Amino acid sequence: MTPTQSPSPARRTRGPTEERILEALDVDGMVEAARELVRIPSVSGEETPAQEFVASLMQAHGMDVDRWVIPMEEVGAHPAYGAEVLRRDPLGVVGTWAGSGGGRDLILNGHVDVVPPGDASLWHHPPFSGLVRDGRLHGRGALDLKGPLVAGIFALDAIRRAGVTLAGTVHLMSVVGEEDGGMGTLAAILRGYRAHGAVVLEPTELAVAPAQAGCLSFRIRVAGRAAHGAVREEGVSALEKLIPVYRALQSLESERNRRLSGDPLFGRYSIPFPVSVGTVRGGDWASSVPDRVTIEGRMGLAPGEDPEAARREMETAVAATAGQDPWFREHPPGVEWWGGRFLAARTDPDDPLVRTLHGAASDVLGREVAVEGMPYGADMGILSQVAGIPTVLFGAGDIRRAHRPDESVSVDELADMARVLALATLRFCRPSA
Amino acid sequence: MTPTQSPSPARRTRGPTEERILEALDVDGMVEAARELVRIPSVSGEETPAQEFVASLMQAHGMDVDRWVIPMEEVGAHPAYGAEVLRRDPLGVVGTWAGSGGGRDLILNGHVDVVPPGDASLWHHPPFSGLVRDGRLHGRGALDLKGPLVAGIFALDAIRRAGVTLAGTVHLMSVVGEEDGGMGTLAAILRGYRAHGAVVLEPTELAVAPAQAGCLSFRIRVAGRAAHGAVREEGVSALEKLIPVYRALQSLESERNRRLSGDPLFGRYSIPFPVSVGTVRGGDWASSVPDRVTIEGRMGLAPGEDPEAARREMETAVAATAGQDPWFREHPPGVEWWGGRFLAARTDPDDPLVRTLHGAASDVLGREVAVEGMPYGADMGILSQVAGIPTVLFGAGDIRRAHRPDESVSVDELADMARVLALATLRFCRPSA
Repeated sequence: MTPTQSPSPARRTRGPTEERILEALDVDGMVEAARELVRIPSVSGEETPAQEFVASLMQAHGMDVDRWVIPMEEVGAHPAYGAEVLRRDPLGVVGTWAGSGGGRDLILNGHVDVVPPGDASLWHHPPFSGLVRDGRLHGRGALDLKGPLVAGIFALDAIRRAGVTLAGTVHLMSVVGEEDGGMGTLAAILRGYRAHGAVVLEPTELAVAPAQAGCLSFRIRVAGRAAHGAVREEGVSALEKLIPVYRALQSLESERNRRLSGDPLFGRYSIPFPVSVGTVRGGDWASSVPDRVTIEGRMGLAPGEDPEAARREMETAVAATAGQDPWFREHPPGVEWWGGRFLAARTDPDDPLVRTLHGAASDVLGREVAVEGMPYGADMGILSQVAGIPTVLFGAGDIRRAHRPDESVSVDELADMARVLALATLRFCRPSA
Repeated sequence: MTPTQSPSPARRTRGPTEERILEALDVDGMVEAARELVRIPSVSGEETPAQEFVASLMQAHGMDVDRWVIPMEEVGAHPAYGAEVLRRDPLGVVGTWAGSGGGRDLILNGHVDVVPPGDASLWHHPPFSGLVRDGRLHGRGALDLKGPLVAGIFALDAIRRAGVTLAGTVHLMSVVGEEDGGMGTLAAILRGYRAHGAVVLEPTELAVAPAQAGCLSFRIRVAGRAAHGAVREEGVSALEKLIPVYRALQSLESERNRRLSGDPLFGRYSIPFPVSVGTVRGGDWASSVPDRVTIEGRMGLAPGEDPEAARREMETAVAATAGQDPWFREHPPGVEWWGGRFLAARTDPDDPLVRTLHGAASDVLGREVAVEGMPYGADMGILSQVAGIPTVLFGAGDIRRAHRPDESVSVDELADMARVLALATLRFCRPSA
């Protein structure tokens, strides 16, 4: 529950330029823009209006905006492509604040796509309200990731308002498709954007996260034989047959986590790389013996792990269970790999980006912030593994409030996040001479 | 697999009148009418066109037809009412062939509603084709129960064509809603139809079935606690929690069948009264820990068993399992009773109806036909338990071909069924003096 690894301190007293920047942060403007963005529903695949809004916002705050229709043919053919929904003419948006030269370039990356709000009756406010109450911004995407994305824009705005220009260039990527596999970030990389470091804005509770677990989405179909429930002996229940397969996944999870644990960045989790079943569906009539049950889930991947080897491991574990049952020998359960997948990634905790961000965060927050890996996958995998950019995750809020009713984020924490990003950007990119 | 109980023989040599009736059966007309009826889709709740067709068919074959809109307010208020679909102005249809007096009255009962065809790609012919190929009538409802219903009409037609009139009256009930709880038969009973015996036309492979198991439909909701799959330790998987509940249902099934077995009419089944789970649904996102799993199934009831006591038994078994787990103490799994339910029923194998039908079947088929209980519930429960009419199930075909793709019935067996019904009706109602 505490920082598991501390880089050598990069903290320093804040200078007058830095104080000026921190004071220049337009908190009210930031909250208003975040509210507006939350009010634009942008469930995966329907991100264009939100992207248009972010492009305008960047422009209004002095950035040069590259706004393009993503060439799906090229992006879809890349081995790191992953998506669960089909998109028609998705937009890429990158706002650039060009540096005067001689500094380090930085990418900030945040996504506009949100997961569906689910049953609206479970929300205390309408899912796309953008309401601010008791110091929190409410709504689907408030936390994941519209609030933090807008905080990134206003961090740069604070530097600009303080009259400071940077030596290095900053690219602020506003991306689609993060929730279903990262195709928006992949598209920006394929368009050529590079930097000396990248910060993926994600809810880390303001910890600096130089590592993320990856994950693979799996689907397993277990077959039975239909019969009328009145003569169930004549059938084979796919639900009954699911149980040993499910138990095999649990054993696989134990075995993998025993083997893969040890990285201190993941020291706070007893199961850093879970094998988790999220959905189960089987049968279509109460009075029949179900002839099929399908489960879907995710398998966590450790940084450095070969996804292909992990896939084979699960396939082998399921096949081994199946081998113990004559029914399965005739009707083997099938493992499919589909949809969302995230590459694991790890950046050296001593990398200048990690040290700079950790220092800025600790200076702004007045405490030693944690440096630790995140157990969930985000676009860090693409920036780090595809583009080779040292990358960290960083942002306001707790991921546990994401993807559920009453998603919200603290406005104060968003402001702190913007302050940290402003200082870190200044220190990383350096002010113009 | 053999008759488990034989009534004292009621077989006798067929007389010349009987021979004339058997020869008068219009097999071609019967097959043509059955094909037409199969071609009218009549999935539960959409039975009116099929009912209109049957009413016309009865009229064309000399019956007086009572065709009425079922008063849902009255029928729905009856304690034996059960239905899963809402019906708007469902039709009751009863064709009556009035007897000259002095004989026993007989009800023949068959349903026009069919279960959905499901995935049409699993069928070798379109589900509502009504195709006859290789001696079999194909299509949803061919076996369950349009072919047998038409066979009933043509059985009476054969008697009429042979120039024979009956002393007793025959009511041929064409009903809706059998598949989802028997509301059509209940409506006919509430309209006042009674007789000295009733034959519910159902696929018994031409066995005489003076008993049926009943069943109750149940739904069990198991709660978990949602969490992101990446931190699944922070959640509680409803799928994991389902497993002990499912095992409790299996123990309940064993315990009940140990206790309830012993009736020789059900001697061929090792589990005459199964507790069977037909559907499972849980979670809505592969990367979440599912916070709810729902199962639906059926619990078989033995003749003479109090359904209320059976319900309490399952509730107690589920609650006992729940009591062993602190999670369940806070989030008890809920048992609901819903939709289709069928009353168990049993008629004395020595009842004149059973002996007459057994004799006629053995005479027509030239072998001792089986007398045995059926493990599935049909409208026998309503005729027997609500109206107090000695009732049997009897009909062509194997119930195992019902409710699945490629449903079909042998045309020869339908003709045999019609011949048995013609003879049994003659013997039971007696010819006019």
